Amino acid sequence: MSTTIDLNADLGETTAGNPVADDAAMLEMVSSANVATGFHAGDPHSIAGTLAAAARAGVVVGAHPAYNDPAAFGRRFVDYAPAELADEVLYQIGALDALARANGTQVRYVKPHGALYNTIVHHEAHARAVIDGIKAFSPDLPVMLLPGGVAVDIAERAGLRVVREAFADRGYNPDGTLVSRREPNAVMHDPEAVARRVLQVAATGSVTAVDGTEINVEAESVCVHGDSPGAVELTRSVVARLGDEGIEIRSFL
Amino acid sequence: MSTTIDLNADLGETTAGNPVADDAAMLEMVSSANVATGFHAGDPHSIAGTLAAAARAGVVVGAHPAYNDPAAFGRRFVDYAPAELADEVLYQIGALDALARANGTQVRYVKPHGALYNTIVHHEAHARAVIDGIKAFSPDLPVMLLPGGVAVDIAERAGLRVVREAFADRGYNPDGTLVSRREPNAVMHDPEAVARRVLQVAATGSVTAVDGTEINVEAESVCVHGDSPGAVELTRSVVARLGDEGIEIRSFL
Amino acid sequence: MSTTIDLNADLGETTAGNPVADDAAMLEMVSSANVATGFHAGDPHSIAGTLAAAARAGVVVGAHPAYNDPAAFGRRFVDYAPAELADEVLYQIGALDALARANGTQVRYVKPHGALYNTIVHHEAHARAVIDGIKAFSPDLPVMLLPGGVAVDIAERAGLRVVREAFADRGYNPDGTLVSRREPNAVMHDPEAVARRVLQVAATGSVTAVDGTEINVEAESVCVHGDSPGAVELTRSVVARLGDEGIEIRSFL
Amino acid sequence: MSTTIDLNADLGETTAGNPVADDAAMLEMVSSANVATGFHAGDPHSIAGTLAAAARAGVVVGAHPAYNDPAAFGRRFVDYAPAELADEVLYQIGALDALARANGTQVRYVKPHGALYNTIVHHEAHARAVIDGIKAFSPDLPVMLLPGGVAVDIAERAGLRVVREAFADRGYNPDGTLVSRREPNAVMHDPEAVARRVLQVAATGSVTAVDGTEINVEAESVCVHGDSPGAVELTRSVVARLGDEGIEIRSFL
Repeated sequence: MSTTIDLNADLGETTAGNPVADDAAMLEMVSSANVATGFHAGDPHSIAGTLAAAARAGVVVGAHPAYNDPAAFGRRFVDYAPAELADEVLYQIGALDALARANGTQVRYVKPHGALYNTIVHHEAHARAVIDGIKAFSPDLPVMLLPGGVAVDIAERAGLRVVREAFADRGYNPDGTLVSRREPNAVMHDPEAVARRVLQVAATGSVTAVDGTEINVEAESVCVHGDSPGAVELTRSVVARLGDEGIEIRSFL
Repeated sequence: MSTTIDLNADLGETTAGNPVADDAAMLEMVSSANVATGFHAGDPHSIAGTLAAAARAGVVVGAHPAYNDPAAFGRRFVDYAPAELADEVLYQIGALDALARANGTQVRYVKPHGALYNTIVHHEAHARAVIDGIKAFSPDLPVMLLPGGVAVDIAERAGLRVVREAFADRGYNPDGTLVSRREPNAVMHDPEAVARRVLQVAATGSVTAVDGTEINVEAESVCVHGDSPGAVELTRSVVARLGDEGIEIRSFL
Repeated sequence: MSTTIDLNADLGETTAGNPVADDAAMLEMVSSANVATGFHAGDPHSIAGTLAAAARAGVVVGAHPAYNDPAAFGRRFVDYAPAELADEVLYQIGALDALARANGTQVRYVKPHGALYNTIVHHEAHARAVIDGIKAFSPDLPVMLLPGGVAVDIAERAGLRVVREAFADRGYNPDGTLVSRREPNAVMHDPEAVARRVLQVAATGSVTAVDGTEINVEAESVCVHGDSPGAVELTRSVVARLGDEGIEIRSFL
Repeated sequence: MSTTIDLNADLGETTAGNPVADDAAMLEMVSSANVATGFHAGDPHSIAGTLAAAARAGVVVGAHPAYNDPAAFGRRFVDYAPAELADEVLYQIGALDALARANGTQVRYVKPHGALYNTIVHHEAHARAVIDGIKAFSPDLPVMLLPGGVAVDIAERAGLRVVREAFADRGYNPDGTLVSRREPNAVMHDPEAVARRVLQVAATGSVTAVDGTEINVEAESVCVHGDSPGAVELTRSVVARLGDEGIEIRSFL
């Protein structure tokens, strides 16, 4: 039974001085930072600031590549040709790694963002393109994915380490998929329920679905949010509970 | 007296399938390719194609960073804060180097593009930012610049190798500056005159100004163009003349 | 039997001084110009130049709205929420009409561009969004569409005039769809065959499919191209043939 | 002595679901909304939402055009050719007016944004370009400007109505310019001082500089902010004070 858990959050999304999340608060709590690359959000200088802060805080940095669609924060599917997508993923990792190395850290894993993350659960050509882009940068970079999608199989067959993640505050269907945001149980707001979710993942890698079914998603990391005052507070209460239970927050690496 | 000369050209500027220059033709002739990074032109996939072609042709690759202004092809001054500009230069070199390494080559020098190139001839803060961005990537990358500007001094004081370049087809004032494009002698169209310019640079590093003054610009490279059928033909005739004179086209490295 | 035909072409796609088509040549030949709005190509100043030239040439101006994806020239499907898409279409028409009115003309029809044009042949929600966006600007603007798609029905039920178009140089399947660009008969290059196509449309509104079937697409306009020297020449030869046959090139309005 | 005052605020700056200001709160308080056009912030659908809300609230809508630089929120000078800038201003007004008319309102004045606003205080060519762009849309649109700059003269000579504005919370130098943000007195945070400023403008069109000098800036409007919880609260306290003093908040039109 694990006594550690990795917490990851999406950071570096400040564009033109307008922050989306409270990066400073989150870097005090998480062990892994999925840092934007400028394609869905973030400009190089503010991204560099987040990278330097992550380095100071000892938080592991991952690249958070996205479809090139800042007007929609990377939340829309864009029908890329696969070869284009692979090169855009590679471009983003390279750009972020250069900023990271100049700020005392480096890219140590990759987690696709938004619509790209969701698309490669089922879209084989885009999944393969993402994996190709990562491998072109380095075959040693782990990729963080939703358990159960086609991208997991493609990544593992390609020899990449896959880090499966769970969501701290999302409802799960009994088949392991997330409850749609259009349905009532999509998001959990109760700090106690969220804390129980994280403790369960830390202990067993499993989550409990909305109907009570326990699903083994083999999660090695839990995604938390910092994009509203309420989200930061929720994470804070989860972190406190993990401390009470003697669970250490530590990178999956 | 040198028997070699470096020819460089701006390539990789195809965006969305619409080419600006004839990259294939130019890669058969030049020894150095200033490859766009996506900030003034180029998308990652077409840039990757140019990088792969450069690798096959044995042409040395340089990064061609620009102000982030694709709507104007990087031809307008943008009043960046210096720290922002340094991080954008670093981002661009890192992105291009990742694409280059996946395609059998790497970034081996940097030449700023367009308005950025012209601005740092006189704008100290932007010149310093460009040099900072390059050094943050690697203190071993040479930077290709217009002779005589403030960026040359800043780069040399910072310990970077400076490669001074001359222009194959531009008129020079007696003080070594380029004749403004608003004046009649700005651009040379006569193949024989252009060939003489390149031969002179190869032999002595000097250029002859519009009034006949010989100016020692200490040029190690000559910039040629491929952005129109006429420009490609002009370069072809220059290359033929260099061959006739026994001058080898070879990288400055 | 008609003795006139409307020829339309995509113009105004110059971005940052890099032209895609020869607008000046095409404006001497066509009766309708589908003018880019800046979302897939074109910047306001070069668009204004094309609008002024269209006004001088007596060519009718249509808006050519697109998905906001200049990096791919509007050639990729983007999964917009319908309400977002409707507002983007409206935004584009308004912007272009303002430029048009300041240059002696106005937007008198709408033809969707690229992936948007192709998507609304079958994608009901996006088709409805495009029609909503047009009607929000003016219920009197005709819309130019591929015959047979869902957008045609939706537009007609919404009370918009639909102008069906045929393609001068594309192969047709017997069901009226275009032969895929991956197949050998996709594009016709023989000037005589292209001229016969346009004459047939002018006479009967029909096209002949690759297997010889005559299909009545009820076309009121024929799309021609100006995006390469060869395309301009092909159009020129078609225009000459129309003149020989006494067919007048005239707007559908 | 006036018993009314116009309050204006920058709204419509939400991009991709990430709000910058609390538009709903501000629309309950101001009489004029400077609505973003998508060039520095805002996407067409969220802009349309703000326009509809302004129409419902009876708030007059102005266009808030900017340099096309969303990566920096329009806060950097960009060295446009004047003819380009004029067409971009015209494009933005046209786009916004189309969205406005579909949502029950229309563009009734223009206030340049950010770096464009500040630049045309002293940059004649850009000032002329902005005025040209506005007049090309309509010679009847008033323009809101900082008193004392070259744009005021150019606009008035061109026959446009100029609406001079004062800032509710900025320190003034005795010559009528704003105290630089690098100096300590740049921004006023005391609600009582801010309220006095607005009352003074309402009564006399004057402001009092940091050294006590009273400067007649002939202001017809006061700019207030809604881009932080503190800014909204400050505006709320000012509005309450105006009510106590019997000053009506009403458009300058």
